[in-house]
Amino acid sequence: MGKVFLVGAGPGDPELLTVKAVRVLERADVVLHDSLVSAEVMQLVSPGATIVDVGKRAGFKLLTQDEINSLLVSYAGKYEVVVRLKGGDPLLFGRASEEIESLRRANVPFEVVPGISAAFGAAASAGFSLTDRRVASQVLFTTFSRGDSVKSLGWREVTADTTLAIYMPGTDYAEVAARLLDAGLSAEIPCAVISQATRADQQVHWSNIGALFHEQRLPAPALLIVGRVATQDVREIGERVSAVRFSESEEIAVARRMQ
Amino acid sequence: MGKVFLVGAGPGDPELLTVKAVRVLERADVVLHDSLVSAEVMQLVSPGATIVDVGKRAGFKLLTQDEINSLLVSYAGKYEVVVRLKGGDPLLFGRASEEIESLRRANVPFEVVPGISAAFGAAASAGFSLTDRRVASQVLFTTFSRGDSVKSLGWREVTADTTLAIYMPGTDYAEVAARLLDAGLSAEIPCAVISQATRADQQVHWSNIGALFHEQRLPAPALLIVGRVATQDVREIGERVSAVRFSESEEIAVARRMQ
Repeated sequence: MGKVFLVGAGPGDPELLTVKAVRVLERADVVLHDSLVSAEVMQLVSPGATIVDVGKRAGFKLLTQDEINSLLVSYAGKYEVVVRLKGGDPLLFGRASEEIESLRRANVPFEVVPGISAAFGAAASAGFSLTDRRVASQVLFTTFSRGDSVKSLGWREVTADTTLAIYMPGTDYAEVAARLLDAGLSAEIPCAVISQATRADQQVHWSNIGALFHEQRLPAPALLIVGRVATQDVREIGERVSAVRFSESEEIAVARRMQ
Repeated sequence: MGKVFLVGAGPGDPELLTVKAVRVLERADVVLHDSLVSAEVMQLVSPGATIVDVGKRAGFKLLTQDEINSLLVSYAGKYEVVVRLKGGDPLLFGRASEEIESLRRANVPFEVVPGISAAFGAAASAGFSLTDRRVASQVLFTTFSRGDSVKSLGWREVTADTTLAIYMPGTDYAEVAARLLDAGLSAEIPCAVISQATRADQQVHWSNIGALFHEQRLPAPALLIVGRVATQDVREIGERVSAVRFSESEEIAVARRMQ
């Protein structure tokens, strides 16, 4: 019986893999990866390994989740080192829990190797903190395009000092902006769209919720960070914190949300 | 003029550093680290480097934030590779934004090297997903012991399908449990205390909000994960999802929160 490693491939830059992830990839007999994993990362995989692309591409689902679960179990019967390679961290917005459940039911040993999640890569690329203590005390990692997201998102109740890291915002930024306004957030609140963070062709677009309606679409994978931390120059934060104008509009936004 | 690298040291296991972080540490001329960074990670630092402990220990503040900011700028004038090494990821719950602001004002080049944040290390150690799509659509990274946390925490408004990752819960678990109950969360909601995640002496205690009042204190650094994902066996989640008893109590909790 082999072992299954659920490995985080990080945001794209192969230098942002963990040391452990690189060692596991070098020893891999088989790698099941999804399409978010960059080509540069795939080059680290042992040359003799079997590569299985289990990702979705342009709406075409290559394998069902049940099929992936079964493959992991059956490969563990045949190979020593089975790697399930996922973009970012394996335990955020993936279906790792279903894979773990299948492995546990089949008594297959497994180990999780964390990865740098996209929001950390995006913040590093853009050069701001997710929680600048002067304007943000916490950060909500949430998503937009998942099947049942409409009913479950708690944005309406988010406090004024919470940064939102919105994974997979999709290409319809106007819809995201409308949802944020509906949730009672002020149109003036800054946001940044970070596309292909940490990769050679990364792009950062600085905006705010009101202007997001008309922003140019950037290539996937993209991440949207919303909140007062998301400004191009952190010096602005210090100024804004003490600016009466900004405080007033924030108070109005907070009051509106508390109704 | 040298360059300042704001580097994430990850949760403790030196194998969970990124490849880039290891390279930067090996080239470092000076390393300013805080006390959360593990001894094993510090062994990766170039033997010739100057080491400065800027952390707090047992309430004794070694250096003020302003002093750290000034040190970074002045070291950049003297050394090629200046490393500011922080536990976890540098852009979450640290004061990186103030350091970045100082570097920008002084025109010192800098780069952020992300790290594995504690919640990802903790979830990997405990073997559950932060967002099991059957019970959790998002995760709030929040904290308990920061100065102004009392007014700013938005837990009251958190939806039933949000996982809470509470950094630095302190040693008074009863206070945390009381706050969670005050926020309208049900006493039955599972939680896990993960102490020294990814280190040799890591411990995971499985509990729920009601039982958290009497849980044994675990050594720092510890992290508390609250939500329906936080069960010892993910198989329980499938059962709970369909259990009428659990659904009803959840609905009551949600209704109470909406009042």
